[in-house]
Order: sequence, then structure tokens, then C-alpha cells
Amino acid sequence: MPPEIGGGSLLIAWQLSGKRVLIVGGGEIASQRINSILVTDAHITVLSPSAGLHPRTEQLIAGYPTRITYLDGSYEHNPDDLELTKYDMILTALDDVELSRSICHYCRDRRIPVNAADIPDLCDFYFGSQIRDGPLQIMVSTNGNGPRLANLVMKKIRDALSGREGAAIEKVGALRVKLKERAPGVGGAVGKRRMTWMTKLCNEWDMGELGQLNEGTMQKLLDEGWEKDQVPSPRALGLKAKGVSSCPRNNRSPILPVLIGFATGVAYCAAVSWLLRKK
Amino acid sequence: MPPEIGGGSLLIAWQLSGKRVLIVGGGEIASQRINSILVTDAHITVLSPSAGLHPRTEQLIAGYPTRITYLDGSYEHNPDDLELTKYDMILTALDDVELSRSICHYCRDRRIPVNAADIPDLCDFYFGSQIRDGPLQIMVSTNGNGPRLANLVMKKIRDALSGREGAAIEKVGALRVKLKERAPGVGGAVGKRRMTWMTKLCNEWDMGELGQLNEGTMQKLLDEGWEKDQVPSPRALGLKAKGVSSCPRNNRSPILPVLIGFATGVAYCAAVSWLLRKK
Repeated sequence: MPPEIGGGSLLIAWQLSGKRVLIVGGGEIASQRINSILVTDAHITVLSPSAGLHPRTEQLIAGYPTRITYLDGSYEHNPDDLELTKYDMILTALDDVELSRSICHYCRDRRIPVNAADIPDLCDFYFGSQIRDGPLQIMVSTNGNGPRLANLVMKKIRDALSGREGAAIEKVGALRVKLKERAPGVGGAVGKRRMTWMTKLCNEWDMGELGQLNEGTMQKLLDEGWEKDQVPSPRALGLKAKGVSSCPRNNRSPILPVLIGFATGVAYCAAVSWLLRKK
Repeated sequence: MPPEIGGGSLLIAWQLSGKRVLIVGGGEIASQRINSILVTDAHITVLSPSAGLHPRTEQLIAGYPTRITYLDGSYEHNPDDLELTKYDMILTALDDVELSRSICHYCRDRRIPVNAADIPDLCDFYFGSQIRDGPLQIMVSTNGNGPRLANLVMKKIRDALSGREGAAIEKVGALRVKLKERAPGVGGAVGKRRMTWMTKLCNEWDMGELGQLNEGTMQKLLDEGWEKDQVPSPRALGLKAKGVSSCPRNNRSPILPVLIGFATGVAYCAAVSWLLRKK
């Protein structure tokens, strides 16, 4: 059973590879939208009069010429030429609320996913704060209740991660592909055996160890591990066992407090015996 | 500039309030999909022959009669009666890959957002591992590279949070609404002043303190704080200042190591002086 029913959003990872995204507007919010979409493989079109371009938007347009097409103009003057229906997603970042609303209604009628900055009731979806480490992506949403607190939660999450999760996930993904080539088949007994072996590996190796895998050690892991139905230690494959710790960055070692305690204990004893001798 | 360009998904919070979601299939995956959608306020329709219902799916259908409509049948036999276009999102959880594919193509042509379990290339979006604490929602996606490692990342995040973030975000959201009523207006000078004051509050109070706010203390905070352009301490409002710590659960106190060190130091001293006296 889900822990909390109702009232939430559906957090999803939208796929934009080979898709087209239109951003209407060129201000600061538009530059944030461009950054969000650059993370994907979508082609971006920015529609804005050149006078309305924020320096950051200009920089992005200049910096990613193969990713971004810039149209100098405004939505009001050529909506027919625009062919909005050729876009797979439309984001508005306009000061003109009425114009934003009319674009949203146009999109809604044609089921084009749309987000209008600052008009939550018209949005098909909201953006959130994000962390990315290679294939690992994390999103924090407060459902519009507090962007400032979202940043504090993001900081806690960043501090809890070692920064080695992305590399580990990438290597495990590559290993899964190799394993599927070696033992193909969807579902059934072989699928179950693959899943069990991968789970065992991920439980026994830590993130730092998984991240050290390369072509050679993956081959060895499949030969010595999968084929013999066991999970060898990283050391057995010539990797540094627990060499790279995956402890969170803020995990403090207890050595210093022990030393301080020890020194205080010795000092206390010395003081007491000095006082006793003085008598 | 975004830290990593290309290759990623667009993580978004999809809005399903007042929307209709169709789940085709009734097995274990279908029950997971129902759980995901129950978090939102969407109405759910499950289409599956009764013989194909997993016990968990049956339980959910029985447990949430106002949220879930169950259609006993299969997609093949009455696609016309179904009126797929009345749904705002369609999720397939079927063993029949060909059927799943044909539903996906139907949806794609009509721009109905669709997810097909186990057929990533046909999905408009992927699901991910999620944490929810009231208005706070967190999603972890490995972009299909390793569900097992996603769970390990989730565990790290859970351990880093105090469990008081949701309550704090909820209270801050309510306070923002009250503040907007007291000092209305979109953007401009008043919008800027509101944002500055809220940011200052969130920086100076911790999550445990923010979560203690109620109707009375919010009123006081606006009267004594906002009106006088200052942020009073939680103590000044009669709340326990730092009473409820917002430290992560795994943050260890250094008292124990200090005590151990102290005891070792005293024992060491005693042993040394005993040995010296013996001579």
C-alpha cells in the first residue's frame, strides 16, 4: 500500500530524445528552461524578440548552436507560421499572463504538454530542483510550497551522496547489457537468474568498487562470477577492495574525540596525583 | 550553465488532479502502477480480465472504490467501446508485447502520454523510485541503468533526512498563502520584499522549528515579523528554539568516543602509577 494517498504529483522521467521543445520567451526564466532541456537530447527552439533576450539566454543560444534554434519574433505576430503542433512540448516564460494562458489553451486542446511559468493551474507539469551525476538523476519537488526549503533538502541530499554513485550506476548498466548478451532472453528462468546475480553483486560490492569496473574486469567478473554462479570479491579481480570509500562526505571519524578524551583523562590523573602528593 | 549536457531525462512533477488514467493489465506491475497514481488525485480505470488480477491489484480495487473503476475485460475485445481518447494518460502492464506496442502507437498518434512496462523505447516517460513526506516528493532515476542501485541511493537519502522536512514545507506553504493575503500583488517591489522575508525566515529557523508553526504563531510571526520587517526567533514566539533538531538521523554525537578516550586515559595513568609504585 502506498504510504500517502492523494494530493501529490506524479514524478516521472520524461523522454525527450529526438523530440522538439519550444520555449516562448527569452528572459531569465527562459534561460533556466533552456538549461533544464539541455540535460536531455531534445532540440530546442527559442521564440523571443531579440530585445527581450536575457544575457544568459543569449549566451546559451550562442554556446549551443546545434542544440538551439533561435527565432527572432513574438508569438502574437506569427502563430500561423509557427506550426505549434510540430513541437512535442511547449514552455512559456512570458510576462504577459493573457498570452501565456492562450498558448496553454491551444496546447491543451491539442494535447501538447505545456508548462507556463508562474501560472501553476495551467501547467501539465512542474519543474523541480535537480541533481545529476551521469545516469543518476534526482528531483526534489515541494509541490509549489517552498522553493527555498527545496534547496535545503537538496543540500542534505548532496551531502549524503559520495559523488561516486553516478559512476557505479553507469558501470552496472554496462555490465547488465553485457550479461544480457551472454545470457539472452526476456523474463523466465534466465531473467530471474540474471536479476538475482546482479542484486547479489550490488549488495556485496560498494559504490566505489562498482565504479572501478572496466572492460577487462567486467569480462573477468562474468567469466569467474556469472559462469560459476558466484560473486567474486573486488580484490579477487584485482580491484582495490573498499579502496575507495563510499561513505557520505559528512561522516566524521571518531578518532579525534577519542584522542581528546584520552588526553583529558591523562591530564586529570596527573593533576589528581600531583595534588595528592602536595598534601 | 548546466553541469551535464545531453543524455538525460527531463524529471518533472506531472499534474493529475481531475484527470483520468487507464491502466491496461492487472498483474503485479499493474498494482505498482496503481500505487503510483493513488499518490495523485487522478481517477484510475483498470482494464483486465478478472482471471489476470494479482491479489494486490484486487486489494487495491476493493480498498479504493471511489478512486478506481474496474473493467472486467481485455483491450483486444472492445477497443472501440473503450474510448481511449477520454483518458489523459495510459499505462500498459501486459505480458503481450505486441498488444502493448499497438496501444502505444495508438496513444502516440493521439498524443496521449503513455508508459509501457518493460518496453522503454515506446515510453513517453519512465517511473522511478520515490520518497514522499507530505508536500515533499523526491524521485530517483537511474535512467534504466540499475534499479538495485536506485534503492541504495534512496536509502542514503532517507537516512539524510530528519523526517521533519514535510511538516516544515507544509507550514511554510501555508505561511506564504497568509503573507500573500496580507501583502497581495504579483511581482514588483512587494513580491521581492515577500521573497526576501521568506528566504530570511527559512535560513534562520531550522526545519524542526518551522514545522512547529500553527495558526496562532503564524499570525504572531506576521504581526511581529513581517510588519516590523524582521524575523523573530522561534523562542520569541513561544516555540522551542532548536528544541527539535533537524540533524540527519545518522549524525553521531561525539560524547561516547570522548568518554571512552577519557576512561582509557585514566586507566592508563592508574596502571602506569601502579607499575611505578611497585618498583
